[in-house]
Amino acid sequence: MASAAEIDAMRRALLLARRGPRGLNPQVGAVILSPAGDVLAEGFHRGAGTPHAEVDALSKLAPGEARGTTAVVTLEPCNHTGRTGPCAVALIEAGVARVVYALDDPTDAAAGGAERLRAAGVDVEAGLAASEAAALVHDWAALQRTGRPHVTVKWAQSLDGRAAADDGTSQWITGPAARRDVHARRAEADAIIAGTGTVRSDDPALTARAADGSLLEAQPVPVVIGESDTAPDAAVRRHPREPLFYATHDLHAVLTDLAARGLQRVFVEGGPTLASAFLREGLADELLVYVAPVLLGGSRLALGDIGVASIADARRLTVASIQQLGDDTLFVARPAAAPGAPTPRVADPGEPTPRAAAPGAPTPRAAARPAAQPAATEPAATEPATAEPAFTAPAPASDNRGDA
Amino acid sequence: MASAAEIDAMRRALLLARRGPRGLNPQVGAVILSPAGDVLAEGFHRGAGTPHAEVDALSKLAPGEARGTTAVVTLEPCNHTGRTGPCAVALIEAGVARVVYALDDPTDAAAGGAERLRAAGVDVEAGLAASEAAALVHDWAALQRTGRPHVTVKWAQSLDGRAAADDGTSQWITGPAARRDVHARRAEADAIIAGTGTVRSDDPALTARAADGSLLEAQPVPVVIGESDTAPDAAVRRHPREPLFYATHDLHAVLTDLAARGLQRVFVEGGPTLASAFLREGLADELLVYVAPVLLGGSRLALGDIGVASIADARRLTVASIQQLGDDTLFVARPAAAPGAPTPRVADPGEPTPRAAAPGAPTPRAAARPAAQPAATEPAATEPATAEPAFTAPAPASDNRGDA
Repeated sequence: MASAAEIDAMRRALLLARRGPRGLNPQVGAVILSPAGDVLAEGFHRGAGTPHAEVDALSKLAPGEARGTTAVVTLEPCNHTGRTGPCAVALIEAGVARVVYALDDPTDAAAGGAERLRAAGVDVEAGLAASEAAALVHDWAALQRTGRPHVTVKWAQSLDGRAAADDGTSQWITGPAARRDVHARRAEADAIIAGTGTVRSDDPALTARAADGSLLEAQPVPVVIGESDTAPDAAVRRHPREPLFYATHDLHAVLTDLAARGLQRVFVEGGPTLASAFLREGLADELLVYVAPVLLGGSRLALGDIGVASIADARRLTVASIQQLGDDTLFVARPAAAPGAPTPRVADPGEPTPRAAAPGAPTPRAAARPAAQPAATEPAATEPATAEPAFTAPAPASDNRGDA
Repeated sequence: MASAAEIDAMRRALLLARRGPRGLNPQVGAVILSPAGDVLAEGFHRGAGTPHAEVDALSKLAPGEARGTTAVVTLEPCNHTGRTGPCAVALIEAGVARVVYALDDPTDAAAGGAERLRAAGVDVEAGLAASEAAALVHDWAALQRTGRPHVTVKWAQSLDGRAAADDGTSQWITGPAARRDVHARRAEADAIIAGTGTVRSDDPALTARAADGSLLEAQPVPVVIGESDTAPDAAVRRHPREPLFYATHDLHAVLTDLAARGLQRVFVEGGPTLASAFLREGLADELLVYVAPVLLGGSRLALGDIGVASIADARRLTVASIQQLGDDTLFVARPAAAPGAPTPRVADPGEPTPRAAAPGAPTPRAAARPAAQPAATEPAATEPATAEPAFTAPAPASDNRGDA
């Protein structure tokens, strides 16, 4: 059983983990305790290519100081060699006597650390604060399973399913409470996706903003998909994060590339063509449908062709919640599992190198380039936590825990 | 203040009122009490052309027996002469000493009875159980104000506003709880309206049925609007109430005619063309939108053109309730008052003869006739409470309280 000092240390490790970036690797924190339960060192993982949390903490101790200590870690110490060696081995070699960790490593490649530690005589306890740790790495773990980011498709509509009136006007179909909710959810996403048609017609900023219009602290990377060009003075080009442009309709390839950039959670904002495409391809994990108490009729539909020909193919939803936001109603739903539905997987979980874009994946153009200029042919992986993604930088190596 | 005996008598009068038919005249009940508070006689109104409730009750007393009694009535005794003389005069002439009534007469033509009674020295008390009495005659009173029945427009749709999949299949978009709710609400309506297109394509029975498929006791009159013919073997022709066919697109005229038949509350069931037309004309008082947790996409919209060109014209709704019915969500709403919205009135409240169809109103064809045969040119008003409306019978005179 974990001691009071270990429980405190785990709480601390979970806080430390959050200091690391969301990205290719999971957020992990570690605390080293003396046999008496005093904190000797702390560490966390700063992203792909940097030391894991346990090694970061151990590095702060004098040689030999770790002997007989207890390591408290939010994730099972890894058992694989990437840029760094297996953490299990580092802990064994340092002489750590006991390891308390929260969550079993969910990846096939990196798991087995606990077993290796036990085989070396280390006392191992698993499962302390497992649910908190699981929530912390939820999106990262899902990406390891599916090979693509979690996809939320959001739209606002009239009760009769229109996104705009017949003449295209659509301002404020939904009210302020719904818009506030959208911005809060944008801020929780790693990327926000719009189609070139919407960017051209609505010129959205694709930022997450407070009610007063000011930018929220967290900003998703703006992603524009489609074959039309985006105007040089488009609002999206003034986004605090550099936009990614994908001149393609291959959504699977785009998602694979976004995953390779460590973008774990994306928010598809529109318009109707793009939302319909994500649904048609079976690539929506979550739907947010903001329904305004208004009827519009006419031809401007919030969804177009989603690949349903007959009622037997209807895309059934599992509704997680229906909530009132001012006068509007938000349906939060996910597609119900249906036989014959396209699989959302775009990469094999056992695939050794999920960090790089799959062959054939589109290469985004950096925003600063002229729209017509060919993009770099090498896929570039960047850490999205950096304020200015360097899209032209050489791809940094990743020690993603899913690496073989 | 009303005595305990008078309160009991009013409760009884409200029950008696319900024995009368919904129709051109309001449902009214009356009880005559002796000075000691004993029930001497009861009465209720049996419909247009028959004695009013007070007169019905008085008729059961021996000559002179009413002298010094108290009349307890659910509606203010009328003050106008139709087929029968004013009830106020009948009460005065019978020597009734006190009148307790629930609801002031809401029509201009018939009001003033209380004043007349008081002027004759009768003790008058108003307002006992007024809200119950108001609920009882609510639809009738609304019809007096608007000149047309209360209109509920109902449709079922996918969350994205489709009534069917692209190939036209639509069976069971919504689940059993929603369907049960629809049938219960149909049973509360006086008429159920469908378009000829829907009748041809779906062959609906337009009956109100229990979950086991058996007919509910109350059945709305089926009404079919549109210029296409209805097949001789259409299910609607086997409805327990004889269907009305209106070969027109003039919804105002249809409603005026339905009002003249004493149909106070109609339920518009489909399809999309007809629902859209009612909305476009501003003729929907209440909307029932059953939303299934399913996406369909495609071209089969639950609403088409409702006359909104720009977002400024959007038909805002006031949502009365949002409730779960199994997996489905029912929005109960009414159009929010909007400047420039078409007025729902089709007749003037002071108009002396709302009982007869307005000039130019379409004349329905009786179901038994061949569809192509010209209809009778005289508008026929019937009492919908009779099991078999006699559409070819001469129009019975009405002593509608709105008569001058």
